[in-house]
This record gives sequence, C-alpha cells and structure tokens, in this order.
Amino acid sequence: MGDRAVISIDGMGGDHAPGIVVEGLERFAQTRRDLTFLLHGDEARLKPLLARAPTAGPRTTIRHAERMVAMDDKPGQAVRQKDTSMRNAIEAVKAGEAIAAVSAGNTGALMALSKLILRTVEGLHRPALVGTWPTQTGVSCVLDLGADIDADAEQLVEFAIMGAAFARAVHHKDNPTVGLLNIGSEELKGHESIREAAKLIRESDLNLAFHGFVEGDDIGKGTVDVVVTDGFTGNIALKTAEGVARMISTLLREALTSSLIAKVGAGLAMSALKGFQMKLDPRQVNGGVFLGLNGVVVKSHGGTDAVGFAQAISVAADMGESRFKAEIEDNLKRLMAIMKPTPVVDASEGTAR
Amino acid sequence: MGDRAVISIDGMGGDHAPGIVVEGLERFAQTRRDLTFLLHGDEARLKPLLARAPTAGPRTTIRHAERMVAMDDKPGQAVRQKDTSMRNAIEAVKAGEAIAAVSAGNTGALMALSKLILRTVEGLHRPALVGTWPTQTGVSCVLDLGADIDADAEQLVEFAIMGAAFARAVHHKDNPTVGLLNIGSEELKGHESIREAAKLIRESDLNLAFHGFVEGDDIGKGTVDVVVTDGFTGNIALKTAEGVARMISTLLREALTSSLIAKVGAGLAMSALKGFQMKLDPRQVNGGVFLGLNGVVVKSHGGTDAVGFAQAISVAADMGESRFKAEIEDNLKRLMAIMKPTPVVDASEGTAR
Repeated sequence: MGDRAVISIDGMGGDHAPGIVVEGLERFAQTRRDLTFLLHGDEARLKPLLARAPTAGPRTTIRHAERMVAMDDKPGQAVRQKDTSMRNAIEAVKAGEAIAAVSAGNTGALMALSKLILRTVEGLHRPALVGTWPTQTGVSCVLDLGADIDADAEQLVEFAIMGAAFARAVHHKDNPTVGLLNIGSEELKGHESIREAAKLIRESDLNLAFHGFVEGDDIGKGTVDVVVTDGFTGNIALKTAEGVARMISTLLREALTSSLIAKVGAGLAMSALKGFQMKLDPRQVNGGVFLGLNGVVVKSHGGTDAVGFAQAISVAADMGESRFKAEIEDNLKRLMAIMKPTPVVDASEGTAR
Repeated sequence: MGDRAVISIDGMGGDHAPGIVVEGLERFAQTRRDLTFLLHGDEARLKPLLARAPTAGPRTTIRHAERMVAMDDKPGQAVRQKDTSMRNAIEAVKAGEAIAAVSAGNTGALMALSKLILRTVEGLHRPALVGTWPTQTGVSCVLDLGADIDADAEQLVEFAIMGAAFARAVHHKDNPTVGLLNIGSEELKGHESIREAAKLIRESDLNLAFHGFVEGDDIGKGTVDVVVTDGFTGNIALKTAEGVARMISTLLREALTSSLIAKVGAGLAMSALKGFQMKLDPRQVNGGVFLGLNGVVVKSHGGTDAVGFAQAISVAADMGESRFKAEIEDNLKRLMAIMKPTPVVDASEGTAR
C-alpha cells in the first residue's frame, strides 16, 4: 500500500455490520482516492463483501480477528477480550500503522479500549466526546457529550481547547469561536465552575477565539463554532434536541398528509423538503470523536447506514491528517502556565522564591 | 362582583402592555363567563382600553397603581418600590381578594415580589418555575426552569410533588406520570442527587405515579407527564429545544420558498401547516407558574400577544381553582415521614429512644 495514509476500520461493529461497513467504505473510497484501509474482522464474511466493492477493494487489506465485541458487552468484558475486531482496529493506530480508527460498535467498549490502548494526552485530565450539530448557518460542535459527568473549571477549559482544534480539523474553520454553555450571558449566572472557566480562558494566553457564555438556543442559531459544557448537560441538550427534531418531523408529516390538498402540496414541495432533510440528516454529521487520546478514534452511530458510516470515515481522515494533537498540546502549555506559575529561580542565591 | 372568583391582573407588565393585556383579558373573558377581574395599573390608560372590551369590561374593576416595574429593573429595586401594578396584583392574592395573579412583566421582579409577599409553602425548601412543553402526544410539564441552579435529592422530590399537582390542575391529567431527567435509564448513571431522589420517591409513600429516569429525548416524545430536573439543566434543555425548533422552522421556510413549484406546493399545504404551527405555538402553552408559594402567580412571556396572555390567565384560573396546595401539602408530609423518622416515645419511661 506504499506511503499512502491508512484508515483502520472495525468491520464488525454496529447494528448492520459488516454489510453497511463495507458499503460505507466503498462510498468513502470514491471520494478519497489517496487513502488505503485496514479492515478488521471475520475474513470469511468480509472477503465476499469486499469483492463487491470495486473502489475500496483494491485498496483494502483484511486483518482477520477471531472475535467481535457485542453491542451489549460491558466495557470491562471488552477490555479483557483479546483479538476482537474493535481492539485490533485501535491497536493499528497505536502501532503507527493507521492515522485513525473508526467503529460503529458498542460505545462504552470503544471508549474503554481507546483509553486503555492509546492513553490520554499528557497534561489533559481526561478525554471528551465531541459531536457535530446542524445549525441555522452550518454546523457547530458540542462537547463533552457524556464521556463523563462532572467537569471542573480546568476541564472545561481543556474541552474548549480540544473543541477549537476539532472545529479547525474537521469543520475546516480557520479561527473557530468558542462559547461556554450557561443559563445567561451575564458573568454572575451559572455554576461556579463555568464562571471560573471563563476567567481562566480570559486570563491565559490561549490561542482561542473566546466568545463568552452562550445559552441553549445559541446552539441552533450557530452563534459559536464550539459549545463547551460538562458531559451531563451536553447529553441532556443533545437528547432534548433530537427529541424536539423528531417531534417536529412527526407532526409535520401528519400535517402534510392530513388532507388530499395538503398531500398534493406536499408532493410539489417535496424536492425542497428533501434538501431540508439533508441539512438535518444525522448521517451527514455522523462521527462522534473521542478527543484527547494519543491517536484518533471515531465512533459512528451504531444504527447508521452506509452514508453515515462513510461520513464517520471522513471525520477520521480529517482528524488523522490534521495538526490536532500539536495544537492542543500548545494550548495546554499556555493553560498550565497560569495554573501553576513557574517558580522564579534566582541563580545567584540558588533558591526558588 | 358578588361571590364569583376573581383573577388579579398586572395591567402594565410586558413588552406590549397595557394593550395586549386588555385584549388578552377580553379574549379570556369570552371563554369563562363565571370569573371576574381586578386590573392593576394606570387608570387613565386602562379605562379607555377596557371601554373597548365588551365582555371583560363589565366584570373588571380597575385598581389604580401609581407606578410600574420596568422590564429592566433589578429584583431588588422592584421589592423596594411601593404601589406598583405588579406588587398590587400579588397583594390582592395575599389578601384573599383574588384566587390567582397574572403578569407579563419582569420575571426576576415578579419572582422576588411573589416570594416576599406570598412566602414559600411550609415544609418546602424553595419554589420552582414550571413550564408546559408540546410533545408528540400532547403536552408535558418540565420543572425547575431556572428559579434556582442546584437542587439536592430532597428538592428534586419536592419538584416531582409540585409538578404532579400542576399536571393534574392545569393539564387535567388524573394520574400524571413523573420522570427524573437523567443521562440514561440505568440506576448507576447520573448525578448522585438524581439517583438519591429516585430512591427517596420509591421508599416514601408518595401519592405519585413514578416512572423512573427519563432522557432528554423523552421530553419531545411525551414519555411522562412531568419531567423533573434542576434549574440549570431545565433552563439549558428548554433553550436548546427552542433553538432547535426555531432552526427547523427557518430551514423549512427557506426550503419551501426556494422554487416556484415548492411555493405552489407550500401554498396548497398551508392549511395543514397552520394546524401544525398551532400545536407548536408557544402562545398556546404560555404561562410559567411559580409553584410552592402560598398563592398562585403566573408569569406570561413578556413578548406575548393577546392569545398568549389569555392562555396565561387560563392557567392562573385552573391553578387558583384546583386543590394544588392541599395535594402538595399531603405529599410533603409523606416525604417528611421518611426524611426525619418520628422518634418513638415510650410513655412509661418518659424518654425518646
């Protein structure tokens, strides 16, 4: 496969694997002719599928794995199992064979294995899970989305740093703006940790376009490129938004099929509505990424189809090819400079003041 | 005005007062011929408006107030001012003249004045702000929506108690189901306070249909009638949902007007879409209520129109006529029974064991 960059793929993860995995891979391969692929899993099942993938096939190497992580395995079980397609996909990143790994499998297991194998970037308290949201003006990213529950001020600043680097790498925004999710724009409102995080960002010399506080409705508006919050609040906001979007589309469908004239109208308006659905299509923004590990692992939605899985591979490629890690390491140094002031050493006295 | 129940109305609160207040009052009066009204504010401005309200006019008494609370007054200022239309509207409830008060004015001021004048129900840690949400199947209520930030386990249980009584009084649900908002349905997930609250509800003998944990997307689904959360999370969920709904309607409008054929189609589908908008219309669910005070105060959205203000008066009437306070007092007693076990006194020894 020569010098071309490699993406490592868990062929067995997800509700519709391995079928949609290979279909998604074929779809992605048509858009990026310069990449090659490692496909982990049951060779007997993957081989015939790949034979029907004319674009991806010639650029893909199958790595047989004896086992697979089930969707309902506990993270602890997954960590103990050897030779699973998920573990092997991550190990290829660790070994430097691949620039990124993708899996649509069990989220908890993928998170646990990724942390164990790749380890957290030095200087970070812990990794975060970032997601991409459609907005009125394009897309934004939101983190943390549930990698953990609580976040103190310093961890929120770390999320801001990682989110900005992600928006640059994957959303191709040169100077992404960052907002802290709060219940008001005034400095007096919200949890202590959020106000303290704003202070830390303002006082440190971060390479970051900080907007200040944003509120829940700013996510849909697209007020900032990166929305920072703790894992609990992020999960609630994400799920609430999904629920509202589903409610609206259900009510809309009912309304548009409620009478013959409405049906005719809906038929005529259909192509316009298709464009609209496209914008909101979760498959177009598929690919939650664990940020802050020494290597890129992208989580595709378990129930995704080929379009969504192709998108997840695209996110992995963007991340793997970016300067993500160097950027966050630079900003982490700037943050640490104000967290623990370096003692001034006076050489003539030989003591630290 | 005889024995008919009275609703007390702040005639000067809100962005479009007093015009829409009187229009909303007229609208509401047409639906409830058995109620009468006290209208507080500048008599010179209210009198000519009321003269053009043929249904409400004859059943409304104007109470002149020298001052009004401005939309940007700080709560502290509002509390110090005497003879404002807002204060007088609440005082009428305190004095037993009215069964409920309604204002579209300054939220912080209304909250502070209501607490000061009416006081929190004995046994409650603090009041909560509840809101009504449209769902796929009807409406649900969510609380707390930002009356305060943190909530410990006992306070979450109090919110559950108040929410259930509200759903019965205002949404006319006989046996409302209650869920605690969390990031997963398993007992091991989420903040300690939420898990502890679930335990308290299960262990106490509350008169409450407890569903367990719900996630963000359950709000839009209408999984339960009452969604309980702390004020911070509730505010974020509410604002996020508003933002998503606005984003979708903007994108939809753009899609439907993007071509001539789409426009024709949208025109034909219009009446169906109108019914749809009606369901999502925030004016139809207007009226956040401060629960847990010794008296009913309903907050209408400041920017509301007559339809929304009429809806807020309707919520006030439902609350004022309900057994709300008796119900929460009964459940609070049941909660207290497990919080502080009554010491068993053995009369023969005269000591508490």
